[in-house]
Amino acid sequence: MEKLRKIGFSKLTQLKDALELLFSKIKINPIMEIEIKEALNRVLGEDIISQMNIPPFDRSAMDGYAIKAENSFGASPKNPKKIKLSGAIEIGEASNLELSKDEGIKISTGAPLPKGADAVIKIEDTELKEDEIILYTSLTPGKNISKQGEDIKKNTHVLKKGIVLKAEHIALLSSLGFKKIKVSVKPKVSVFASGDELIEPGNALEPGKIYNSNTPMISSLVTLYGGKVIRGETIKDVKETIKNKLNEATKDSQIIIFTGGTSVGTKDYLPEIIHESGIILTHGVAIRPGTPILIGLINDTIIICLPGTPVAAYICFLIIVGPAIRKILGCSTLDPRIKIYANIQKNVPVSRLGFLHHLRVKIEYFNDKIIANPVKLKGSGVISSLTQSDGTVEVPPHQEGLKKGEQVIVKLFPK
Amino acid sequence: MEKLRKIGFSKLTQLKDALELLFSKIKINPIMEIEIKEALNRVLGEDIISQMNIPPFDRSAMDGYAIKAENSFGASPKNPKKIKLSGAIEIGEASNLELSKDEGIKISTGAPLPKGADAVIKIEDTELKEDEIILYTSLTPGKNISKQGEDIKKNTHVLKKGIVLKAEHIALLSSLGFKKIKVSVKPKVSVFASGDELIEPGNALEPGKIYNSNTPMISSLVTLYGGKVIRGETIKDVKETIKNKLNEATKDSQIIIFTGGTSVGTKDYLPEIIHESGIILTHGVAIRPGTPILIGLINDTIIICLPGTPVAAYICFLIIVGPAIRKILGCSTLDPRIKIYANIQKNVPVSRLGFLHHLRVKIEYFNDKIIANPVKLKGSGVISSLTQSDGTVEVPPHQEGLKKGEQVIVKLFPK
Repeated sequence: MEKLRKIGFSKLTQLKDALELLFSKIKINPIMEIEIKEALNRVLGEDIISQMNIPPFDRSAMDGYAIKAENSFGASPKNPKKIKLSGAIEIGEASNLELSKDEGIKISTGAPLPKGADAVIKIEDTELKEDEIILYTSLTPGKNISKQGEDIKKNTHVLKKGIVLKAEHIALLSSLGFKKIKVSVKPKVSVFASGDELIEPGNALEPGKIYNSNTPMISSLVTLYGGKVIRGETIKDVKETIKNKLNEATKDSQIIIFTGGTSVGTKDYLPEIIHESGIILTHGVAIRPGTPILIGLINDTIIICLPGTPVAAYICFLIIVGPAIRKILGCSTLDPRIKIYANIQKNVPVSRLGFLHHLRVKIEYFNDKIIANPVKLKGSGVISSLTQSDGTVEVPPHQEGLKKGEQVIVKLFPK
Repeated sequence: MEKLRKIGFSKLTQLKDALELLFSKIKINPIMEIEIKEALNRVLGEDIISQMNIPPFDRSAMDGYAIKAENSFGASPKNPKKIKLSGAIEIGEASNLELSKDEGIKISTGAPLPKGADAVIKIEDTELKEDEIILYTSLTPGKNISKQGEDIKKNTHVLKKGIVLKAEHIALLSSLGFKKIKVSVKPKVSVFASGDELIEPGNALEPGKIYNSNTPMISSLVTLYGGKVIRGETIKDVKETIKNKLNEATKDSQIIIFTGGTSVGTKDYLPEIIHESGIILTHGVAIRPGTPILIGLINDTIIICLPGTPVAAYICFLIIVGPAIRKILGCSTLDPRIKIYANIQKNVPVSRLGFLHHLRVKIEYFNDKIIANPVKLKGSGVISSLTQSDGTVEVPPHQEGLKKGEQVIVKLFPK
């Protein structure tokens, strides 16, 4: 058994390979229909083809008068032109009015353009004297008109399955008349922290113990990435307890996340439990922090055991667990982090070649550039290094570190 | 009356002044206590001073043996040193073990360091033969130990009131033992779209009408910015209806957002209703899109009337309404948008000097720079220009436009 616990570490997997293996085991969730007003941050479950034109008809883009542009040709404040007011069209009105030569129809922004009109003159550029409209400016045909289908043509592929719905997508879908929309079902996720040293926040701290911060942190990240936390617990390092909890959770979870219990210490039972009940896909990935991560499978449930140190757990979530959740959701972008370019503020050596290092950095804006300032850290347990950072810079396994001033990509922490 | 409707436009307010005026009328919400597991994206309502050290005690950062570093001096694979195994400390254990000279105590990652020890040697760098520990490497004192208070010292100001709580803050608070936390009460917001042309999505479209996309879009944005939507309705452009709805909503809303009905068209009743029931703070701001925005006050309720065109409503939300919501929440950062530097892909003239223009841009990543590509647009009603963009570039009122290649700041759309 001592041997099994150490197996993973004798040969580390590259992150890319670990992700590929993990993703190959993932089944994309089915879709469900929800009200569009509940759709913020959900993953679109269908391609959207417009069934109508937007705007649905030629309409006025201004408050003014619908005219024939030719009637305004040459008009100026000093040389105004005159036409006859022959009616009015309000917004929302289905009017049969038709414009004849030398006529103008009063029209509101958004109202359908009457037949015969090819331009709208702004009210500010006119004066109304009884039933005569005085035009003070010359218009080209098409001026101040939104053409039918100008924004979206009927039968256009407007949104792709797999995007995360934001306010602007909700606007677009609403404008096409959608009241309900198909989205991916949220993956059910169980979160456990195992460790005899853990005390639940809210209780008195005992000697030798620490508060469990991993369950609340990981649960928040699961929510942020679009999963549904169905269980969040702290459990003791007792093999039977862990095994029972794990087996219970495999019945209703698509992903089970453990923190702690994956290293080579005496009490790290998780590798052997997973080995007994399912398969270990990979144990030990060439990343820092986070090397001891274990990815396994019991029936169809993905088991991801993260290191117990909060920073390592956080980073591993961003690079492995989060993308797995989004893969289940059918997301087209598995990693939602925003990337920015910055210049690193000082030389940074890495602790060991062969590992993909994730440096925590704080970004600062200057007049014409962004500086990434490595956050001082002592060990991967240092939570304050996360709250003081804005994101990470990755140093590839073959690279000895970063040189002061070098341009780097900062992946911002998810918001 | 015709006169009143036009008042705002004769003299436009600068955005900065409009915001100052608006913010001067805002009262910050009270705080409430919630469970920390519900705290994601809430605004912290209290300064957090650590009441304990993290870690609470000196602890091992590795699985291995707690030793006196001097016992390892000079040790190497070829010249190993030997000490006596005198006990074991598991993680979570409150041990009274004390280390004597030439002894080692087996220790797990996170377990409290025994008295007398000043370093931990990793298990991989040792071999155990009966009760003898063979040391294969030399350690400096302090190696592989996390000192008490190394991460957070007791009585440190760790988090500031007014931050938006993310997973990393939730981790930090949990590690300090917080089960509950004080956050700002969410502002109650009513959202109305007025216009005779509007049909609710889900119903058949009639001639001359369009679907209302503003209520779902603005409601999503309110949620995203931390507000609570208590009402979302589409109403007809009938003065009495608007007035009744408005008066009803002032009773329980801190902010009322209207879209449509603020321009100079015949049926734009909002300015006169607000003038009758309260005060107009500003009508007409020197921004594009969004010039006709109106900000008013009825009793203590802030009324913000956004243009009816979805893009203008969206942009005005980001620059005015969202910051107002976050001001009520007591947020330390009123505008949450992420800023990146990019080079503009082509010359962009602006439509009119004297306005703060908001160009929609799509960003593209190249090897060493980010390009901001202006999104082709025809009018502010073009919703697809939002879904195709990643953010906005602002062109100041006195600037004639942007020059190809110029460095610009892109404010990314909120996610």
